[in-house]
Amino acid sequence: MSLSEFDLIQTYFSDLGVSRSDVLLGVGDDCALLQVPEGRQLAVSIDTLVSGRHFLPDVDPESLGHKALAVNLSDLAAMGADPAWVTLALSLPEVDSVWLEAFARGFSALAVRAGVALVGGDTTRGRLSITVQAHGFVDRQRVMRRDGARPGDLIYLSGWLGDAALALLARRGIDVGLADLSPFYRRLDWPEPRLDLSAAVRGIASAAIDISDGLVADLGHICKAGGVSAAIQLDRLPLSAAVYGYVQKTGDWAVPLAGGDDYELCITVSPEREKELEAAVSHLSTKLHRIGVIEEGEGVRCRLPNGSRLENDVKGYDHFA
Amino acid sequence: MSLSEFDLIQTYFSDLGVSRSDVLLGVGDDCALLQVPEGRQLAVSIDTLVSGRHFLPDVDPESLGHKALAVNLSDLAAMGADPAWVTLALSLPEVDSVWLEAFARGFSALAVRAGVALVGGDTTRGRLSITVQAHGFVDRQRVMRRDGARPGDLIYLSGWLGDAALALLARRGIDVGLADLSPFYRRLDWPEPRLDLSAAVRGIASAAIDISDGLVADLGHICKAGGVSAAIQLDRLPLSAAVYGYVQKTGDWAVPLAGGDDYELCITVSPEREKELEAAVSHLSTKLHRIGVIEEGEGVRCRLPNGSRLENDVKGYDHFA
Repeated sequence: MSLSEFDLIQTYFSDLGVSRSDVLLGVGDDCALLQVPEGRQLAVSIDTLVSGRHFLPDVDPESLGHKALAVNLSDLAAMGADPAWVTLALSLPEVDSVWLEAFARGFSALAVRAGVALVGGDTTRGRLSITVQAHGFVDRQRVMRRDGARPGDLIYLSGWLGDAALALLARRGIDVGLADLSPFYRRLDWPEPRLDLSAAVRGIASAAIDISDGLVADLGHICKAGGVSAAIQLDRLPLSAAVYGYVQKTGDWAVPLAGGDDYELCITVSPEREKELEAAVSHLSTKLHRIGVIEEGEGVRCRLPNGSRLENDVKGYDHFA
Repeated sequence: MSLSEFDLIQTYFSDLGVSRSDVLLGVGDDCALLQVPEGRQLAVSIDTLVSGRHFLPDVDPESLGHKALAVNLSDLAAMGADPAWVTLALSLPEVDSVWLEAFARGFSALAVRAGVALVGGDTTRGRLSITVQAHGFVDRQRVMRRDGARPGDLIYLSGWLGDAALALLARRGIDVGLADLSPFYRRLDWPEPRLDLSAAVRGIASAAIDISDGLVADLGHICKAGGVSAAIQLDRLPLSAAVYGYVQKTGDWAVPLAGGDDYELCITVSPEREKELEAAVSHLSTKLHRIGVIEEGEGVRCRLPNGSRLENDVKGYDHFA
C-alpha cells in the first residue's frame, strides 16, 4: 500500500493522546491553534532522537515511541510544567505499517497517561529520526529554573542512577555480570518522566534539571547557571545492587555519574525547606535521596566513601565530543 | 576545534533573531518560558527539511537557513498568525564552523525581518536534517482556516507560480530554455513568506493555504476541508514569461500546477467582500490574482484558455507517492 504523506499523518497520528478543550484546531491545517490558560506561561522543549546515535535501528518501535515522548516530558518535569501538547516530526526510510502502529502505540500510551494531545506533525522520507516538541504550562511562582541554586542548598536526586547506563553497556556486548538484564533494558528503553515528583516539589525546589546527559554534566549545568559548585557524597547515590556491584568490581564510576539516559530529576532546596520538601514527596512512589550540598565556587566535586576525592575526570555523554 | 553540543547551540544560535519581552527564558534551560498575550491564541507549525530530499547536500547553507525558517513562517502566514518564536532541531554530520555561520546568518536575517526569536534548539550528529517549529499569535476573529471556503467564493493567488519548479527542473539538468537562471534559483532557494499579505487579508478571506505542495494539491486541501470543489481558469494564473513559455513549448502544466516550493498564498473570499479585499492589498508589493471560483462538488478542475478541461491528472509532489 502506498500512503501519501498526508494519509500517513492522518492514519497513525490523528488520534494520539487525549482530547483537550484547549486544542482549538489539531492536526490537518497549516498550523494547530491552541489556547494557553490565562495567567499561565508556556514551557517549550524540543529533542531529536537519531537512529544509530540514540537508539539502534532494530529497536522495538513501541519503546521508541514511548521514549521519544518521555525525554521531552522529562524536560517539562524538570521545569515544573504541566504537559499539554506535543508535535512530532518523523523521518522514515519507508512506510512500514507494522512499525508505525507499534511506534504510535508506545507514543500514545504515554501521551494518554500524561494527558497530552498530539497537535501537529510532519512526516518525511529519510534516515530514521524523531523530533518531538513538548508544550506545557507553568505558574510564574512555581517554575523550576536551572539558575536558582544557592550555597548551602541541599542536593536531591530521584532514584535510581546508572541502571540505564549499565543496560547500554550490556547492549554493546560488555559483560556487566548480570543474569537477568530485562529490568535494566526496561530502564533504558522505557524511561518514566518524573511528572508526579515535579508537581510535588515545584514551588519548594530552588533549581531542577533532569539527568539525561549524566549526573555530573547536568548538575554542572545547575552550578554554571547559578554561579555555584556542588559536592556529592558518592556513598549517598541511589544505586541498585547491580550498579553498586559493577562499580565495586571495575572502579568505573562513569556508569552512575556520566551514563545519562536515567531521566531522573536532580533538584536543590534551601535547608530551611527540607522538611517541607520531604513531606511533599512522602506519598510518592518515586523517592528522593539527598546526595550532597551546593557550595561556593564552581564545578562538581565527588567524594568517595573514604573521604577522598574521585580523581577521574568524568564527563557526560556529548554528541560532538 | 571540537565543540560540545552545548557550546554549539550557544555559539551559533543564542543570538538568532530579535529580543522579545514575551520570552521569559530562552535557550539554555530545560525549556523555554514564553508568554502568550492575553486574548490571543497560539498557532504552531512544524516542518522538516531533509538533505537529498528537500535540498541537495551542497546547497548554499545561508539559503538553507533562510528556507528552513521561511517554510514555517509561510504556514503561519497561511493561518493569519503574527510570528513570535521558533525552535530549531539540527542534525549535522560534523561540526563545520563556516557552514554553521552561514546557516545561522541566513536563518537570523529572516528571523530579524519577521520579528521572531529563537527560543530553543537541539543539535545532534547525524545526516543533515533541519526541523523548525514556528509559533505565532492569532485573533479568533481573524484566523484563516482551510475549511471556510463556500460555493461562490472567489479564489485568489499571490504571484508568481511555477518559477521555483522551473528552477528545480534546471537544477536536475533539464533544459528549460533560459539563459539566466539566477532569478529562478532565487525563487527556489530564498522563498519569501507572505506575511504582509496575510496581515492584510485576515479577517476578510474565508480560507487560506500556502502553496508548498503545488496549487492543485493545496487547493485540493481547501476543497476537501470545506466540502466544496474549485474551478481554475489556467489563463488567469500569474505566470512569468519563462513559465508560460515552458508550458507553451512542452504542454507540461505540472510546472505551475504541481511544482510546489512557491510558498505563495491561495485564499478564498466571499464575492461580497471582493472590493474590501482588493482595497486591503492595494498598497502591497505582493499582488493577488483572481484565478477561479469555489463551486459545489469535490476536487479541483482546471479550464484551458479554449474552454476545454485539462485532462492530465496533475498531482502535487508527495514524499511517499
